[in-house]
This record gives sequence, structure tokens and C-alpha cells, in this order.
Amino acid sequence: MESIKNRRTIRKYKSQNISDDLLNELLQEAFRASTMGNMQLYSVIVTRSEEMKAKLAPLHFNQPMVTTAPVVLTFCADFNRFSLWCRQRKAEPGYNNFISFINALSDTLLVTQNFCTLAEDAGLGICYLGTTIYNPEPIIDLLNLPELVVPVATITVGYPDECPAQPDRLPLNGIVHLETYKQYSPEDIDNIYAYKESLPENLNFISINNKETLAQIFTDIRYKKSDNEFMSSGLVKVLKRQGFFEDR
Amino acid sequence: MESIKNRRTIRKYKSQNISDDLLNELLQEAFRASTMGNMQLYSVIVTRSEEMKAKLAPLHFNQPMVTTAPVVLTFCADFNRFSLWCRQRKAEPGYNNFISFINALSDTLLVTQNFCTLAEDAGLGICYLGTTIYNPEPIIDLLNLPELVVPVATITVGYPDECPAQPDRLPLNGIVHLETYKQYSPEDIDNIYAYKESLPENLNFISINNKETLAQIFTDIRYKKSDNEFMSSGLVKVLKRQGFFEDR
Repeated sequence: MESIKNRRTIRKYKSQNISDDLLNELLQEAFRASTMGNMQLYSVIVTRSEEMKAKLAPLHFNQPMVTTAPVVLTFCADFNRFSLWCRQRKAEPGYNNFISFINALSDTLLVTQNFCTLAEDAGLGICYLGTTIYNPEPIIDLLNLPELVVPVATITVGYPDECPAQPDRLPLNGIVHLETYKQYSPEDIDNIYAYKESLPENLNFISINNKETLAQIFTDIRYKKSDNEFMSSGLVKVLKRQGFFEDR
Repeated sequence: MESIKNRRTIRKYKSQNISDDLLNELLQEAFRASTMGNMQLYSVIVTRSEEMKAKLAPLHFNQPMVTTAPVVLTFCADFNRFSLWCRQRKAEPGYNNFISFINALSDTLLVTQNFCTLAEDAGLGICYLGTTIYNPEPIIDLLNLPELVVPVATITVGYPDECPAQPDRLPLNGIVHLETYKQYSPEDIDNIYAYKESLPENLNFISINNKETLAQIFTDIRYKKSDNEFMSSGLVKVLKRQGFFEDR
């Protein structure tokens, strides 16, 4: 499976469009992923119009891929469709709760990753936007998502117009545990992160940001506690608004 | 990508083992999936011992695959390793909150799906156990998971000893929306679920369970509101215990 092994995130795309046929084929195949009780708890919103891309872009902190990619896909955890079906069939759905959100989120992310693999294998490039859950409320409004539907992942797709270096990954033994979790010793941590810390681009990050360590780039600049706390309460609020925390 | 198109969940495995080399290669390649800020917020626990499988099985409602598969993998959302690194590098991690759990969960599920694709492409069969988040506490205890580590998906893997029929999937137009979400009309719902409702095995389910509709099988038997509510509060409790809800 060379396309997975050699993959890299693509942020620059050719102007060439993606045909409806190809996109639909990739989506259809992606929906073969494992799904909880075969309920298929997801929906996908396809954005092709320039107008909608321009409106989506600021909701993803103006990352340029949103407007430059021919296709933007918003993958949504969706218990709305299934619940409508239940009500229409004399069955009372009980999915307005936290576990059901996590179940739908899981279904959705498996399909999202399947789509990315298939797209890359077909010669397309993708970028996964983690920003979707940072500020989901205006995305919900823009895409007109009803109750029990929450956007969880956004993928920009297009034909690659760059071939960046593959990013580093931690060594396998830093991630895989045999039989039980072995808590990391200080030496383990040093070994696991040594290569990442040695990379010239990371040393440069430390220097231009006037920091002492690479970890400080993450804790003080990129993924700050105060931002995380703000987004955590925002996400809980959104889950309540979309009806996944009815009992709270 | 024929292996994705033709995939089916495999619950019966040959006795043939999976070599460490193959398993490690598949995991290593799976870790190429997109990851938030390249933090790789996951760990994988490999279960090979009969003793551990026997202990895991009841925590997955005694699904037989847990003891009959040569390998069981528990994929865990993990902010422990990253936080240890931060503390060891004069950086104060701020990841004991809900958004960080969702970020780690997302990273983990992308890798899980990548692993499944790679395993199937290598001729293995997998079964995704959604039961992992139904009752995570004893799994945490058994696998010795520290704070900021939560099991989110379990995969049984082995060489296939069956070739079941491919399950049905909803029609593409029941899942994909153009530009904005189009709320489903009653006719849409009828159309989307018509094929599923027509399947002999589903008609049989209704009959042997003395129900009126297929939806009632889901709401009254398989995924009941009372069970969902019980599991929701259990999951919130576990997230608190593992330190992902420090502010609540």
C-alpha cells in the first residue's frame, strides 16, 4: 500500500477540478468502512461553490486551502437521519446523549480516513483540517446542520501542486505497548523525542520564537491551555445545542 | 483500491499467527495518518497472550473474536506521553480538558482505520469492536492505562476463515449533501431505507423479535435509550477519572 506509506499532506492544488463521478465513487467506497450496527452515522457536505468556500474559510482560521482546493468536504457525525427514520417507523430514538455522539463521531472519522486513503490512491492530495471542532457553531449555521448533526472533520481535496517532505514520526516502540501499558521513564521520553528535537526546522522554531524547548512551542504558542479550555466549553455548548447532551 | 471496495468484517480466523514483523510494519505505516500538529496522540496495546485475551473477552461482552483472533489491538487516545515530554522540557501541558480528548480520539481513529485498511490489503481480516467505549473502566485497569489515556477502539485481527456477504449500505444520495444540509422529507427517508428494510434477514429479525418495524429492533433491543444514557454517564465518569475533564 504505497500510497499510505508515501503520503504527505497536500496544501497546494492544481486548478484542475475533480469530477462528480470520481468524487462520488471515492465517497461510495469510503462508506464501506466499519460502522456501528450498520447505522452509518454520518453525512458529508460537499462544498464546490466559490461563495461557500469564501464563507467557510474564516471559520477555519483562513487557512488558504479552503478557498484554493476544488473540493472541500465537511464530514459530520449524524444521528438525525437515523432518528427521523425511527420516528417514521413507530420507534422512539434514544440517541440524544453523549455516547451516541461518540459513536457517530467514530463512524464518521473511520469514513473520513477511508476517503483520504482512497483519494490519495487515486492521485489526489488531501489536507485534514483539525479546526472543524475548534469553532463548530458558525459551521453548523452556514451548512444548515439540524439537531443531532455536528461537523467533526474537514478535508480539502485536489490534484497536488507540491510534494513536501514527509514529516517525522515517533519511533514505533514509543507508541506500541505489549500486553499492558508501560509508563514511560524519563530516558524513554528522551529517546522517543530525540529525533524530532534534532530536526533543523524544529531548532529554528525554538530560536525564532525565543523559546528554550520545542515542547514550549506547543504549550505556549500552538496548543495553549487557555485556548483548549475555551474550546472545550465551546464544544460542550455545541453538543448541547445540537441535542447530544439532553440530560445535562 | 479493491481491498476497501470488497471489504467485509471478519469474525472467524485461521489459527495461523501474525508475525511481529508484519504487525509492526502495518502499525508503522498506519502511523502515517494525519495527526494534530504531528503530536501523534495515541498508543496501541498489542494483546497476544491467551491469559490477557481471556481477561479482555468479558469486557467486550464475550464476543468470541477476542479469544479466537491471534492478535487483539486496543487503540488508545493518549495525551500522557506528550504531557510527560512537556514537563520534562520546562513546558506546562494544558491537555487535561475535553477538546484535548476529542483531538486525541480523532488522531487515534484515523490511525485505527489506516491500520484496518493496511491489514486487509495484506490479506488479513479485521473486526472493529465498538464495545470499547461502552465500559472502558475495567479495560483501563486491565491494560494499566495511566491518566490521559483512554481506550477508544479495539480491533481483532487474523487470517480470514470465512467470507461473509458484504453488508448493505445506504444509497450515496442519502448521505451526501451539496453545499448545505438538506433536511430529509418523509419520502426521502422511505427511499433511503427501502432497500435495507426489504432484506430477508431484516424481515426475519422483525419477525423473530415480534416487532412491527426494523427501526424498533434498534430502539427497543440493540441500542436502547436507557443503555445509551447509562453508558453516557459512564463515559463522562471515565473521562473525569482519566483527567480529561479537570475543570468539571
